[in-house]
Amino acid sequence: MGIHLKSIRSFHVGGRLQTLTGMPVTALSHLPGEPPRLSDMNGEHAVGQLYAQHFALESPRHACPILLWHGGGMTGVSWETTPSGQPGWLDYFLRAGYSVYVSDAFERGRASWPPCPEVLPSPPDRRTLASMWALCRFGPDGSYQNAATNRPHADLQFPIGHLHALACQMTPRWAGTDDWALDAYHALLERVGPCIVIGHSQGAYYALQCARQAPHLVKAVVAIEPGAVPDGAMAPGALPPHLWVWGDYLQEHAIWQRHLAKSQAYQQQLQQGGTTAQALHLPDEGIQGNSHLLIMDDNNQQIAARVDAWLQQALPHDHAA
Amino acid sequence: MGIHLKSIRSFHVGGRLQTLTGMPVTALSHLPGEPPRLSDMNGEHAVGQLYAQHFALESPRHACPILLWHGGGMTGVSWETTPSGQPGWLDYFLRAGYSVYVSDAFERGRASWPPCPEVLPSPPDRRTLASMWALCRFGPDGSYQNAATNRPHADLQFPIGHLHALACQMTPRWAGTDDWALDAYHALLERVGPCIVIGHSQGAYYALQCARQAPHLVKAVVAIEPGAVPDGAMAPGALPPHLWVWGDYLQEHAIWQRHLAKSQAYQQQLQQGGTTAQALHLPDEGIQGNSHLLIMDDNNQQIAARVDAWLQQALPHDHAA
Repeated sequence: MGIHLKSIRSFHVGGRLQTLTGMPVTALSHLPGEPPRLSDMNGEHAVGQLYAQHFALESPRHACPILLWHGGGMTGVSWETTPSGQPGWLDYFLRAGYSVYVSDAFERGRASWPPCPEVLPSPPDRRTLASMWALCRFGPDGSYQNAATNRPHADLQFPIGHLHALACQMTPRWAGTDDWALDAYHALLERVGPCIVIGHSQGAYYALQCARQAPHLVKAVVAIEPGAVPDGAMAPGALPPHLWVWGDYLQEHAIWQRHLAKSQAYQQQLQQGGTTAQALHLPDEGIQGNSHLLIMDDNNQQIAARVDAWLQQALPHDHAA
Repeated sequence: MGIHLKSIRSFHVGGRLQTLTGMPVTALSHLPGEPPRLSDMNGEHAVGQLYAQHFALESPRHACPILLWHGGGMTGVSWETTPSGQPGWLDYFLRAGYSVYVSDAFERGRASWPPCPEVLPSPPDRRTLASMWALCRFGPDGSYQNAATNRPHADLQFPIGHLHALACQMTPRWAGTDDWALDAYHALLERVGPCIVIGHSQGAYYALQCARQAPHLVKAVVAIEPGAVPDGAMAPGALPPHLWVWGDYLQEHAIWQRHLAKSQAYQQQLQQGGTTAQALHLPDEGIQGNSHLLIMDDNNQQIAARVDAWLQQALPHDHAA
């Protein structure tokens, strides 16, 4: 069975035109056989936008589209295809009858990135495969030497033979740009209207923030292993239903224990305000071996199906007209 | 009528893992509420890859898929949606029965970009709206002040009220990276197999190069306003059919006269070798007002239809099995 789309469109949203001054003027040749010409970067540039690709189904079975928000140092590619070439969550949710928006956050991928230090506060940061290995819980501490020599967890679901493909998905990122990213995500929500947001890692943090700041637009939120949660006083009243999703090996990594504890405290705070706030701990369901990149793990479709089932329960009236 | 896809997949191709040394180690906080941690960028990074998104039709009407290669400082977004939100050439060629690959070249968009100066030879270059205005022939010399104040050609087909959306599509680029880009495009061709390549501007130059270097894979090539052409001696024998597409106002801009002359000389050289090498000058066909960004102009679907007709004539046996 195929994917029957009404249309595929993309757009940038958020940000503004900014006139930059004090930028370099350099003689450059971009064309073979052409002499260098002066490139004058002083002038108007777009800054602050994000990029979104909209897959609109011909016959959606749900009224709310799903927005897929990627994690730190990554792009919307996270949702498209796993590093081993298997279908990702974009494929799952389109076939499950949801129209889907896949976005590249501010500063990542097709969103482009503004100059530093003129606009961005610092030089770009880049993750090595070694740092990804540690962050993503692919193996115990000390189990990584390089892409060819390493000892992953025996039951790991991540396709560990495809580390080069994972490294290709990584993009530079900047510290201190959360406000830029959130502003652009709010612009996206305003443009899309009522929707479901599924966020991974850093994108899960942004999703939790937006669910709290724009509950009239975010009808349900799924936070996959966020490293941070919103803080500060909350307005009284219930927020849209929340689901956390957690993979395996959390107990072996102090940093993930801390991230989990922060999320659990926030979950409790939400529940006290009357919000449906649940957590899916995959190992508790007998689903073992999932990494922090569970949306790309070999069993990612099985996990997507659990999330889909939760969404249908959380939004029982979400039927397309 | 919708777009019926068998699948949507994406992948990176080309390049390699490279271990970088001498990279900064910096204390950074990427998570709100978390103390800064050391980010050590020394280690393995992916460099040299491009990104491609593959839209495979359920029932293609042509055996060869179309590869859409964007221009300098841009990404595959060029082909998706015009700055005014209208369908681009991706939409046209999918509905015309071709499976399509849209790529982001090395260093652009979702392909990511390696560090400079450690890997790339120089700092990034960025086009201002003023430089785009001049390059794209939106108006006569001296007709641009800023995005709000300007005098476009009276019959211009580019949606000039959407300059911010155009600026959002621009990404940083580097000079001196043609070999990187070409290597990755060749890796893409090897992966895809026999295909049609349509390139715009810088992407048209790469398409011409690849048609010459890999004629067993490139079955037809469409070069939209290239600024450069391959040079040097050619192996004897015919290459795949070539089509150039040119917009309006070329005669008003010395640089475009020069680009046109180079292409015409190469076209003649191809013809002398027995290659079908034709040019579609839109004004000669009564189609006026097209800019260098004719794939995003208001009449872009009309031009795509002309290209489609040429392809069917150039590849009369290109029927899907």
